[in-house]
Amino acid sequence: MSEIAELRATVEALGGKVRQLEDQVEIMQLVAQYGPSVDSGSGDATAALWTEDGAFDAVPQLRMRGRQDIAGMVHGAGHQSLIRSGCGHVLTVPHIVVDGDTATGRSYALNIRWDAAADRFWVARVSANTWRWVRTPDGWRVQERINANLDGTPEHRAMLAPPASPAKTVVTETVAGGEAS
Amino acid sequence: MSEIAELRATVEALGGKVRQLEDQVEIMQLVAQYGPSVDSGSGDATAALWTEDGAFDAVPQLRMRGRQDIAGMVHGAGHQSLIRSGCGHVLTVPHIVVDGDTATGRSYALNIRWDAAADRFWVARVSANTWRWVRTPDGWRVQERINANLDGTPEHRAMLAPPASPAKTVVTETVAGGEAS
Amino acid sequence: MSEIAELRATVEALGGKVRQLEDQVEIMQLVAQYGPSVDSGSGDATAALWTEDGAFDAVPQLRMRGRQDIAGMVHGAGHQSLIRSGCGHVLTVPHIVVDGDTATGRSYALNIRWDAAADRFWVARVSANTWRWVRTPDGWRVQERINANLDGTPEHRAMLAPPASPAKTVVTETVAGGEAS
Repeated sequence: MSEIAELRATVEALGGKVRQLEDQVEIMQLVAQYGPSVDSGSGDATAALWTEDGAFDAVPQLRMRGRQDIAGMVHGAGHQSLIRSGCGHVLTVPHIVVDGDTATGRSYALNIRWDAAADRFWVARVSANTWRWVRTPDGWRVQERINANLDGTPEHRAMLAPPASPAKTVVTETVAGGEAS
Repeated sequence: MSEIAELRATVEALGGKVRQLEDQVEIMQLVAQYGPSVDSGSGDATAALWTEDGAFDAVPQLRMRGRQDIAGMVHGAGHQSLIRSGCGHVLTVPHIVVDGDTATGRSYALNIRWDAAADRFWVARVSANTWRWVRTPDGWRVQERINANLDGTPEHRAMLAPPASPAKTVVTETVAGGEAS
Repeated sequence: MSEIAELRATVEALGGKVRQLEDQVEIMQLVAQYGPSVDSGSGDATAALWTEDGAFDAVPQLRMRGRQDIAGMVHGAGHQSLIRSGCGHVLTVPHIVVDGDTATGRSYALNIRWDAAADRFWVARVSANTWRWVRTPDGWRVQERINANLDGTPEHRAMLAPPASPAKTVVTETVAGGEAS
């Protein structure tokens, strides 16, 4: 192989790694926008994190389908009352597994509410979250998010179970296969 | 264009993407140092996260200007009493928007305190945080952080409102503009 | 230097930066898998985050050595009772300092438990965490994690103290040295 062909191959391989890193960081940043969007009452910005027909299940209360449902939840009486009383929707960085133009993830969401009389917050919910993201012409968007309280319900904690190759990340090509564990 | 000129253009484009990723990861890591620094009582290390003249507002109690003020807060009687009683300053990964040599962000900070008698913690504060970072010869530093309790005060939750192009991240050049949402 | 030699040097430098970013993101993602693994009761997946002989100290209760101990903890009566009652092990993104094939870090872990009678959660533990990671043929793994409650014990909060060059990150080569702070 000529010197330049060799170098081109190196650059192409590097480009693939950079795309994988971009996917990871962009998805982290997409998720980091959920809390600030809902807690500031920004319904349209929240909805824009999803695809046009994106799904969001807040088990068991709410089953949202499409951006209008999601914006409607944020603008609705229930959520508005929550944020006017003082509330933080605190999400963790998900474990993200990218597969081409889709990705899946698992994380936590805390719903913490202000108690003015007690001068402290109380933790209303700690929930398991599963995510399905999709790459769109505008960047990664949420296709499906399921959010279910970790109240001992077996199906809810099962949502957090690792995918087939648990310790694999998309950044390296290595897998944890073949080990005793 | 010659083969080598073409390849050079590809490498330059890749270099730009890598710089954007470095900015994101470095700022995430800068923020990840705040909690451990204050909770270990390391005033100088905390102050070093800011620029020399950096600002830190803990609304409404404290208005710190410059590294000396910030180190002074950590070494002060109030904070020292807090950490001696048991306390965690738990920050989330911010949504980060980089614009050249400055960047802005939004995130949460939890102030959680030990109650030895009850053998549990209580959540003293969940606050909205806005950040302004600046690229210095020593890397990214905090130029301004505002921290205000999510106690229902409209101005505090408004701090979390998304910037103009809500779903945009710095990693991709795409924006969510033009959509119904 | 010839045009191609120059370009090759640029690509090599870029490759080094990409590897540093990969290390950061991979370690973040390794840590992001702990909570979901233990809260779904996945003992083997949890153990696979560690090296074969990895150490995990949950001070002062548990001193685990090797994957079998870690899987045993997850499958054990204590942990199983915890997750059946409803529990979230919520970890933050650590501050990560990579040094070749090893890395160290500091972060928080929250242990939050469901109280069905009160229809809310309570924060059982907020702990200081120190990590030692190692690069293996299968990617980064945990070599040692120490987890100790932030209950005012001086040694526990000292775990969060910054390494020698506090504001340094691995992404840039710059350090905060020489400053007044």
